[in-house]
Amino acid sequence: MIISEYDNRLQDALSFINGGDDYLVVSHVQPDGDAVSSTAAVFWLLSKLGKRAVLINESPIPQKFAFLAGAETIVHYREQPPQRKFKRIIAVDCADFRRIGDVAALFEEQYELLNIDHHPTNDRYGTVNVVRPDAAATVEILYDLIQHAAVPLDLEAATAIYTGLLTDTGGFRYSNTSPQVMEVAANLLALGVSGHQLADHLLERMTVAQLKLLRLGLNRLQFSGDNKICWLYIEPADMKEIGAVPEDLEGLVNYALNIEGVEVGILFKATDNGEVKASLRSAGKADVAAIAQLFGGGGHTRASGCRLAAPLAEAMPKVVEAVGKALTS
Amino acid sequence: MIISEYDNRLQDALSFINGGDDYLVVSHVQPDGDAVSSTAAVFWLLSKLGKRAVLINESPIPQKFAFLAGAETIVHYREQPPQRKFKRIIAVDCADFRRIGDVAALFEEQYELLNIDHHPTNDRYGTVNVVRPDAAATVEILYDLIQHAAVPLDLEAATAIYTGLLTDTGGFRYSNTSPQVMEVAANLLALGVSGHQLADHLLERMTVAQLKLLRLGLNRLQFSGDNKICWLYIEPADMKEIGAVPEDLEGLVNYALNIEGVEVGILFKATDNGEVKASLRSAGKADVAAIAQLFGGGGHTRASGCRLAAPLAEAMPKVVEAVGKALTS
Repeated sequence: MIISEYDNRLQDALSFINGGDDYLVVSHVQPDGDAVSSTAAVFWLLSKLGKRAVLINESPIPQKFAFLAGAETIVHYREQPPQRKFKRIIAVDCADFRRIGDVAALFEEQYELLNIDHHPTNDRYGTVNVVRPDAAATVEILYDLIQHAAVPLDLEAATAIYTGLLTDTGGFRYSNTSPQVMEVAANLLALGVSGHQLADHLLERMTVAQLKLLRLGLNRLQFSGDNKICWLYIEPADMKEIGAVPEDLEGLVNYALNIEGVEVGILFKATDNGEVKASLRSAGKADVAAIAQLFGGGGHTRASGCRLAAPLAEAMPKVVEAVGKALTS
Repeated sequence: MIISEYDNRLQDALSFINGGDDYLVVSHVQPDGDAVSSTAAVFWLLSKLGKRAVLINESPIPQKFAFLAGAETIVHYREQPPQRKFKRIIAVDCADFRRIGDVAALFEEQYELLNIDHHPTNDRYGTVNVVRPDAAATVEILYDLIQHAAVPLDLEAATAIYTGLLTDTGGFRYSNTSPQVMEVAANLLALGVSGHQLADHLLERMTVAQLKLLRLGLNRLQFSGDNKICWLYIEPADMKEIGAVPEDLEGLVNYALNIEGVEVGILFKATDNGEVKASLRSAGKADVAAIAQLFGGGGHTRASGCRLAAPLAEAMPKVVEAVGKALTS
């Protein structure tokens, strides 16, 4: 039997967990599906191994993930900062230390940290690091860890892991949907996970605010002369009038991107402080990370963002022009 | 080793194929992704087994499936009715004989037919019937048949099978997404299928006409007093003005259904001959098949349709009222 480097890391993680009794579990600020699911899955594993754990996040947990077992116990740091400190930390889905946010203020000076993550940019900031960049989601690593710990999965844990896979692969549609992801999903469904209900709840259903933003956005779509760039904008007054929260904007930019022939879709969001936040999405030809970098932003080649200290009427043509140049160069 | 009834049927199908040399492969009228993919997959298997085959469909093949190997050879019966007849037929994804449409006119009097299908209502109209109602798609049965025939899958066949799975499960989101579906998908991805490109092409991208219909539809959304019913309508003049074809309407009704709190979504489509076609979708509480039956239509509990010989202004309140009654009873 060949023990891989990865197996060794899983063993290190398990030794870390077994070496203590009291844990702080944290994920990144503004948590997404994988962050909340990973937090829930670690909490589940710790409970099964008889450990105590407190779950804390700098930001509130989006309402749509409240159904996950354990999610209701995640402390919102900004609202209720705990009065104690922690020596043993498990950080999930955080590519670097800063992603932990203000929760890091709760670490004892001599803290020990288990860093479990799938981001390729992870800088191994932990005492123990289990980083698998080819995993589609951090929950995929937690699935392996639970197998390694030989703790039998139950429906609760399986639902958390499926949720993380579903959200981080865009419903098994992104290029990170590997054969391994599908095999894990098969096993989780066999355990009784209601995949279609999760997909409906997390990916299909829209809030009324999302619907109104979509309607407004579609009525405002603008195209470049060659129809390869499509953009829309949302102003603070729109958000107020609709009663929308920032997470209602999730996915809106995809409507600009997904139109036949469009190479780059952009959502311009004006903020209350007079800035414009641009979210860029590429169908493949343009490297939108490079474009965002021109404006001090960054991201991935197909999904990036930047901020401009300018009104919409100035910011929009600037970014569109830069995209146009990138597409013709 | 236990040979299941299903294995016996697969063996019968293989014997049927090996017992001849010249085949007509047909699927249902107005073919969807599974119909075209199944046609392509059977054609691939027949070729590998050294058989000749002609692929014919009563209707044209939607442009978005043209990329499938073999799809370009599918004869559009209405446009180019072949001048010969066929003795040996393979029908895929057809729940009953009528779904074959006018292509049945090409069958010799003493025809022999292999019926491969996954619809629970399949009435076993074939000489040999391979019907597996728990399969998510007909391509899932064809995957088993190809395994049974011990023909090694290649990228071409794997792509066809993945396409059928993807479209018939709504991108692995419907309740027919079984562990087996995910296992097959894992194997196909391991063979090199570009799942994310297929998902982008088949599920994410919208034609400009689809976008315009969506914009129009969202601007026309209407709600019942309790917000549990949401509907929209499209008129013949809209289709003309937008330059839309019927397949551009696919998925539009889901925007009505998927709004938070909505129990039934309805798309009313007025036709040129003064009828109204209603497509009903249920989130689970209402049995929309029963509602459609009130108007002479039918379907599934969560997806149904019916036609009313009345103008929109009459048809819409009638159907909405019936849905309201069903939801309160």
